[in-house]
Amino acid sequence: MFYSPRDLRFHLYEVIQAEKLTQLPRFADHDRTSFDMVLEAAGQISETLLRPLLTVMDREEPQLVDGKIRVHPQMAAIIRRFGDDGWINAPFDYKEGGQQLPTTIMNAATFIFGAANYSASVFPFLTTGAANLLRSFGSKELVDRFTPMMYAGRWQGTMALTEPDAGSSLSDISTSAEPTDVPGEYRIRGQKIYISAGDHDACENVVHLMLARIKGGPAGAKGISLFAVPQKRPELGTLVDNDVQTAGVYHKMGYKGAPIAHLMIGSAEGAVGYLVGEPHQGLRYMFQMMNEARVGVGMNAVSIGTAAYCASLDYARERPQGRPIAEKTAGSPQVPIIHHADVRRMLLFQKSVLEGSLGLLLQCSYYADLAHAGEGETAQNAALLLDLLTPIAKSYPSEMGCLTTSAAVQILGGAGYTTDFPVEQFYREARIHPIHEGTTGIHGIDLLGRKVTQHGGKGVQLLIAEMQKTIADATTYRATNMPELTYLADRLREAISRLTNVTTYLLGLASNPTLFLADATLYLEFFGIVTLAWQWLRQATVAQAALATAQGDDAAFYHGKLMAARYFYEYELVKTLALAHRLQSTDHVTLEMHSDWF
Amino acid sequence: MFYSPRDLRFHLYEVIQAEKLTQLPRFADHDRTSFDMVLEAAGQISETLLRPLLTVMDREEPQLVDGKIRVHPQMAAIIRRFGDDGWINAPFDYKEGGQQLPTTIMNAATFIFGAANYSASVFPFLTTGAANLLRSFGSKELVDRFTPMMYAGRWQGTMALTEPDAGSSLSDISTSAEPTDVPGEYRIRGQKIYISAGDHDACENVVHLMLARIKGGPAGAKGISLFAVPQKRPELGTLVDNDVQTAGVYHKMGYKGAPIAHLMIGSAEGAVGYLVGEPHQGLRYMFQMMNEARVGVGMNAVSIGTAAYCASLDYARERPQGRPIAEKTAGSPQVPIIHHADVRRMLLFQKSVLEGSLGLLLQCSYYADLAHAGEGETAQNAALLLDLLTPIAKSYPSEMGCLTTSAAVQILGGAGYTTDFPVEQFYREARIHPIHEGTTGIHGIDLLGRKVTQHGGKGVQLLIAEMQKTIADATTYRATNMPELTYLADRLREAISRLTNVTTYLLGLASNPTLFLADATLYLEFFGIVTLAWQWLRQATVAQAALATAQGDDAAFYHGKLMAARYFYEYELVKTLALAHRLQSTDHVTLEMHSDWF
Repeated sequence: MFYSPRDLRFHLYEVIQAEKLTQLPRFADHDRTSFDMVLEAAGQISETLLRPLLTVMDREEPQLVDGKIRVHPQMAAIIRRFGDDGWINAPFDYKEGGQQLPTTIMNAATFIFGAANYSASVFPFLTTGAANLLRSFGSKELVDRFTPMMYAGRWQGTMALTEPDAGSSLSDISTSAEPTDVPGEYRIRGQKIYISAGDHDACENVVHLMLARIKGGPAGAKGISLFAVPQKRPELGTLVDNDVQTAGVYHKMGYKGAPIAHLMIGSAEGAVGYLVGEPHQGLRYMFQMMNEARVGVGMNAVSIGTAAYCASLDYARERPQGRPIAEKTAGSPQVPIIHHADVRRMLLFQKSVLEGSLGLLLQCSYYADLAHAGEGETAQNAALLLDLLTPIAKSYPSEMGCLTTSAAVQILGGAGYTTDFPVEQFYREARIHPIHEGTTGIHGIDLLGRKVTQHGGKGVQLLIAEMQKTIADATTYRATNMPELTYLADRLREAISRLTNVTTYLLGLASNPTLFLADATLYLEFFGIVTLAWQWLRQATVAQAALATAQGDDAAFYHGKLMAARYFYEYELVKTLALAHRLQSTDHVTLEMHSDWF
Repeated sequence: MFYSPRDLRFHLYEVIQAEKLTQLPRFADHDRTSFDMVLEAAGQISETLLRPLLTVMDREEPQLVDGKIRVHPQMAAIIRRFGDDGWINAPFDYKEGGQQLPTTIMNAATFIFGAANYSASVFPFLTTGAANLLRSFGSKELVDRFTPMMYAGRWQGTMALTEPDAGSSLSDISTSAEPTDVPGEYRIRGQKIYISAGDHDACENVVHLMLARIKGGPAGAKGISLFAVPQKRPELGTLVDNDVQTAGVYHKMGYKGAPIAHLMIGSAEGAVGYLVGEPHQGLRYMFQMMNEARVGVGMNAVSIGTAAYCASLDYARERPQGRPIAEKTAGSPQVPIIHHADVRRMLLFQKSVLEGSLGLLLQCSYYADLAHAGEGETAQNAALLLDLLTPIAKSYPSEMGCLTTSAAVQILGGAGYTTDFPVEQFYREARIHPIHEGTTGIHGIDLLGRKVTQHGGKGVQLLIAEMQKTIADATTYRATNMPELTYLADRLREAISRLTNVTTYLLGLASNPTLFLADATLYLEFFGIVTLAWQWLRQATVAQAALATAQGDDAAFYHGKLMAARYFYEYELVKTLALAHRLQSTDHVTLEMHSDWF
């Protein structure tokens, strides 16, 4: 298996208690049974359609042939299946043909798809993201023109942001938009690079949600607008070429099955772009949707990590090699390597990072549901918490996913380095996540420079209050006299205090932004570890309480949870000692280093 | 450029003072000029022959065709060139046709070759290793039969250890050897896997230095013997097939240009193997050579890391993106990303880890020279220091090379993930080193379970004495009143004391080997960081002294050294706080976890 259905149920129903969402009017038609049906369907498609293509999509990567990117021939049927089964617009309103599925359940499903075959899962959910942007900010006419074919899986949606000179620095976008005689229609000219699913032969058309600059508009970030730029224009019932050319397909280290395109837009007569919403609001629109996309990236990282963890766990249980250290009998049989402490350490490392991250990501999804479908202070607070946690939810799993997949490779040893096993593929795939949807460096600056301070620091106050609720729960309500939980709760209390001290210290430097933000990436790592420790105390508290009556496999599962929590505190939380030390140091070596001293 | 000749000269001539080796009789014919000629020749071959094939050897990987592995067609000429120029036997005696080149200089040359093209550099130096085993323990007859063609680059040498059921657990080798009527000749039967350069069409023959078990010998490690098993037997001036079949070539994540073979030995009439040395001494012989091979692996890791560092440094200097954080002027030009603190942090991370590791590896090579060519206590102490430091010199650069190449990818961002730039290749190549020549887990157990305690702990005492000499040097002799050096020296003193405390604590657990060695991998990491800090204080002391008179580029170079030393202490040495905390914890979670709780 490539994920644990038991663990997913634990997060959804025992920790987060996702059924509570059905008390909100938007989700009133759902219940635990309908949630389970969704997850079961996701598991079924994943096993039967996605997983069998995992290896072949890596080996036979997309190629540009006669100006068109050719992807694996089965992708067309898969994308249509996602459309037919209603996955692409599942979270949207009934009146749009959606199912008003909570993001929490939707993201749990994407976790399953991504663990089965990350490349294949990219196509339909890019369309979901693009459609969401269109339906949130576009006119009814635009929505009607494009979204039905997108929901059906016949047209691909993309986010077209990056340009050769505008990657992390989006305000430097130079693709231009010139008004035509038709209101709302513009001629778009420029080029875009690294556009995921930007062109391929598994769909009939591609709709780019593209950032461009209306001529004569303000410079910088304030002059960027959002357009729908189709590869082919729907006109009078037919599709007309719209002057969006595919200049190339990038070959990548991993997730090779999903093509990344280099696009030339409007190099002949100019491509027609349809303005989405108001002019010059493009970056604002994009960033309103970005939180969800970023939680999605974190989820993808956990998916790939989980697939690698499962593969290494299977191997560790089956591969005999060596003997227990204390074994003295010559000629005794070799034991499965899971019996070696160092292998168990590498397995616990993966388990604690991945299950902790999954908990955090589903928690963030739950906040997204409360923020969108809830009301009043609950919704506002959830929005603030989601906003604060987004850079962590994106970056912590992405950075750590590189290390957990590396541990999976190490458990397999020489076998793990060969293409005979899938872990080397997961290792290559995991490496994209610290890069796309904002690099880790960008998220560090977002967290420390924006999220921590905005709204008078209310997000951090709310988060710490949540953590303290978890501590109270662990030490009193559910689990009286549980010394293990009390021990973990005390460590979390210390970590929160360490985080508060470091934050206060850094905010004292805020008048010098260069100094203030120099180590923002380390601050992000620090904050991420404390956040995961909070998640693990929640999981441990639930597990400890459940152990009172659990039997058999269930008892084993809860014991595993408690051990993983202990592992995280012993081996990971302890790293905040070193991080706090560095973050409060007055040696500004990265700022004092000269470029020509390297 | 793919390495820094200036930095290499700094290590060799300013820190280690490799010219002192020429005072030893074995190296008396050498001088600084001859050393420089060797390094210049290595640079020249690397640039003109090896580097141009870096990408193509990755893209067109070896294939098994009609039972023979086909490698890149230029490899034949390259291996012959290494033979013709005397590289393969350069460190060996004059009387064997060698040049008695110090290992220190030889390893500096392999550093250059590996940075140019790791895959290509593997072939000739595997032959060196195999020949060294043969000449050290084999009869004159065997040496004469095999080594001339190996030195000429016409026959490939290999180390054939691993079997399907014997990877980390070498004592489980089952390949069998049956005596024939000819003294010293045996019939060998079995299979070997993951044999580097185990078969290919760039040489005329392959000589495997193979471990096998003589029938009727003792069980376990004590019954393993060493054989020379050629692919083709030289008989009466011709080469006769020796029943060594290539069953497959493994496809790997990286260093794809070097083939790794699956061999079936003696499946028909049995392969003839020539016993090397005495029966049942195979593992002992192999491990006597292993120290050098392991230092070589560490060096390869630094080579690949250095190539990635250079590529990311070039990119950071040239790629404009974003503006300084304090820049407020809209429309100001973008700056090269090397001006961003987080990019400088990632560059300093690479520089400090790689140049610190290179220093350590050359230091170990120098100990190897003293141990082999020196006399009396100096030679004995050097051997002890080399023995102690080998697991660190192998594992620290290997583990960290995965992270430094990752930082290089991150600096290039999306570009780094594509095959348009070489950093993704380096990232894939780096991942082998924590696996081959003993996994990191094996080296942790070797360090804590054997090297720290053997000879009454004399190795550790000698090492700490060396570190204290460095501290004394930094604080008094060369650099009076250098507050920066004093600061670093104080930190190193603390770290040594932390290391001593942790070691003492762990040795207190030695009566329970399972407990004692459970976190040996973390101990290895801890010890490695302290060792690198020692190396950096040495480098900083030399740099600080040289700055008194240095000008221009030289001054910039020494400033860079001091900054990298500060970086290492600020961001890396500080990690020992967390490691020491964990290593002294009484929570034995990896031992208490049950296999069925995962």
